[in-house]
This record gives sequence, C-alpha cells and structure tokens, in this order.
Amino acid sequence: MSWTAQILTLYPDMFPGPLGGSLAGKALEDGIWATEILDIRNFARDKHRTVDDTPAGGGPGMVLRPDVVGAAIDAARTKAEETWPLVYLSPRGRRFDQAMAREWVSCGGVTMLCGRFEGIDQRVLEARAVQEVSLGDFILSGGEVAAIAMLDAVIRLLPGVMGKHQSAEEESFERGLLEYPHYTRPQIWEGREIPAVLNSGHHGKIAEWRHKKAEEVTRLCRPDLWSTYERRHKT
Amino acid sequence: MSWTAQILTLYPDMFPGPLGGSLAGKALEDGIWATEILDIRNFARDKHRTVDDTPAGGGPGMVLRPDVVGAAIDAARTKAEETWPLVYLSPRGRRFDQAMAREWVSCGGVTMLCGRFEGIDQRVLEARAVQEVSLGDFILSGGEVAAIAMLDAVIRLLPGVMGKHQSAEEESFERGLLEYPHYTRPQIWEGREIPAVLNSGHHGKIAEWRHKKAEEVTRLCRPDLWSTYERRHKT
Repeated sequence: MSWTAQILTLYPDMFPGPLGGSLAGKALEDGIWATEILDIRNFARDKHRTVDDTPAGGGPGMVLRPDVVGAAIDAARTKAEETWPLVYLSPRGRRFDQAMAREWVSCGGVTMLCGRFEGIDQRVLEARAVQEVSLGDFILSGGEVAAIAMLDAVIRLLPGVMGKHQSAEEESFERGLLEYPHYTRPQIWEGREIPAVLNSGHHGKIAEWRHKKAEEVTRLCRPDLWSTYERRHKT
Repeated sequence: MSWTAQILTLYPDMFPGPLGGSLAGKALEDGIWATEILDIRNFARDKHRTVDDTPAGGGPGMVLRPDVVGAAIDAARTKAEETWPLVYLSPRGRRFDQAMAREWVSCGGVTMLCGRFEGIDQRVLEARAVQEVSLGDFILSGGEVAAIAMLDAVIRLLPGVMGKHQSAEEESFERGLLEYPHYTRPQIWEGREIPAVLNSGHHGKIAEWRHKKAEEVTRLCRPDLWSTYERRHKT
C-alpha cells in the first residue's frame, strides 16, 4: 500500500500544490505515496455548511466547531491505519524535525488536521487525542502550508524516491552537524578557487576536511546543536 | 509599491502555489504583494542549459554552479531595493521565526534563492553575501516549499491582509507564550462543556483565565519558551 497523507482542510485545492512537481510529484504518479483529501466543510450539519462560530468568552476571529471537526476526524480515521499519527498543525505543538519525519515514514501514513481562523475547539483535540505538531515559531494563515512542508520532508525519505542520490547533507544533519560547504566547476570563479584539498584525490583528507568544516559551521551558526553534539562525543 | 517576493528557482511553476488561494491569494490579486519569479535555468551559459555539476572532492548529488547562480542573483538584485534581504533557504541557516517575518515586512520585499540537489557552490554564497535562513531542523527536497511557508507568515502581516481580524494567537505568541485554548458552540459536545468562566461575561476574569492557560500550556509544551518568558518577567 502507498504511504498515505490524509488531509482534513477547508482548502482542498491547495493539495498536492508544490508536491505535485519535482521528486514528490513523480513519486505521487508512481504510487509511492497518495493523498486522501477530506473537505471539512462536507461535515457541516446545517444548510449553510457552517464550520465555525465566534469564540466563547469573546475576542477576534472564528473557531472551528467541535462537532464538525469531530465528524471529519472520525470519517478519516475509519479509513486510516491505526499506526498513522493523528496530528493538528499548530504553533503550540511539538516542533517538527528530521526524527519526526523518519518516524512518520515508518508509520505508513499520517492524518493531518489543518486549522484556519483563530483555531479549533479544544474539546475535539482532547476527545480525539490529537497530537499538536508545529512547523516552527511563527504564525501561518493556516495549517495547509505547514502540512505541505512536512510532507515534502517525509516523501523524500520514502524508499524509491531519492534512489541512490543519498544526500550527504542528510547524513551530516543526522549526525547532529550542519552541512559542510559544497563546490563545483568552474575551478576558479571571480578569482575564487575551490579549496585545494578537494582536488587532491585523497579521499581520507577530503573526508577529514569536510568533517572539520561541518563542525566549524555548526559551532558558528548553531551553538545549540553544537553543544548537543559535543556532549554526545565527549562522553 | 507592492511588497515583493523575488524568487530564484529551478521550479518556477511551484509559485504562487498555495499562496494563490485564501487570504494570500486575495492579497496577491489586490496588489498588496507581488512575486517576481526568476528561472535559474535561464542563466545557464551553454546550449544544454546546464545549471549544476558534480561536487568537487566527490560524493553523491549535484551542486549548482557559482557562475549560473551568480548571474541569476545579479539579475534579481538590479531590480531589487537595497533594503530587501537576500536569503538562501538552507537547513544551515538562522532559524526563521515570527520576529524575522516582521523584519521582512518592514524591508519592503525579499530575494529568495531556492536550492535543489546537493546544494549551491559556497563561493557564490560568500561573494554575494547571501544570508542563509532555515525553516527548521529537517531536510526538504528544495527551497521552494520553505519559501512558500515563510512568505505565508510574512504576507498575513502586511497591512490590509488580515483587516481587523487581528489574531489573539499572534499577540500571545509575541508575548512569548503559546496560545490559550479556544472554544465555541455547541455549549455541550459529547458531554464536554465549555469552561464556565468563558460564559460568565466577566471580561477581567476571562482575560485572567486565558493568560493562566497560555502560561500553563507554554510551561508544559515548550520549556525553552517558558524559561525565556520567566526570565523576562521576573527581572
């Protein structure tokens, strides 16, 4: 069975969006992954297809109703495997990272609930044990763009998507370091040369130089990653 | 003049993508923001329109050439305002956050360089003083999806996009706290009631309850944000 992204959204037309092109688009055509889009509006119970209402206690914006969202989640989950995480894209959530992307790959699929407006009624998140996952410390206009970014990270890890182009970047990242700098032709550009060691043909020295550079860039750009890395390698 | 996103990409068709719908799409139609898409392939110098080559020193993948990317950046920057940041979307970069989104709004635009393959020749990043910005600690198939997410965060902050629907979520986030829970009708759903205080009509008590909840959820879900918040409020 294809790895499946179930998406609950008020904007079904946003999918697959940029995931329909490039590597992810080819993998979608090849059946390596699939989308199942559920329009939350189809679960409204009145003739106006109302999905939201004003926040209890007052304040700006609108909140998605628990009965509507609950019905949408229940419809999705009857078609989902039990192993698929059920997540709500929200800046309150646990931060998405490469480890979570790998975990989702191994789950066979994911059910993603995309919010809009002010948010979703808290009761449905609790009643359905929805995990909140965040793309980062910023506010998006809705969960859709976050879902697309997370799926992009997941899809490239699915078997058969990247083929043998296993990325050195990824290896470096998973060792807890940022990526070393890359160079390619021309040999001299605007008076700047490719570092000599990379033309030496000496694999050991090249690997050593790259590792040193990866450590250097991590130490300079991301002290937080660096201290975790140092701790792990000095014990 | 419209706030402008200049985008250098090998996948021009990915834009505006999901930004063509919803709030951002309406703002694009209204001329509140604009895109200027530059296809990096148009800056190739040979008849095969080659943009990449093998990495110096060996290894998997392909690296974008400095001469091609340099020419694309130069073409973009002649049309850009000097105030626009010139950024490369890369997991090595400074983490994008709400403060950066606000900063970009005030700059009037941004030039975004989207990589693909293994990366971009380091010399062009140095020669053109490109700032690296990261969406988070995960690897995407290219910079395009990251650019779309960052633009979504920026666009909703542009004057006239959100109108009076100023989001409480945002206020909470900018105070350094996560968002308090939201509730809406029905009053009782699956036996779960809306917290009584929210129906009290007592604005002071409601504000106090929401603030306490925002602190609680921050302390539980994001100890890192919580300790920053505590430090700031105890001095």
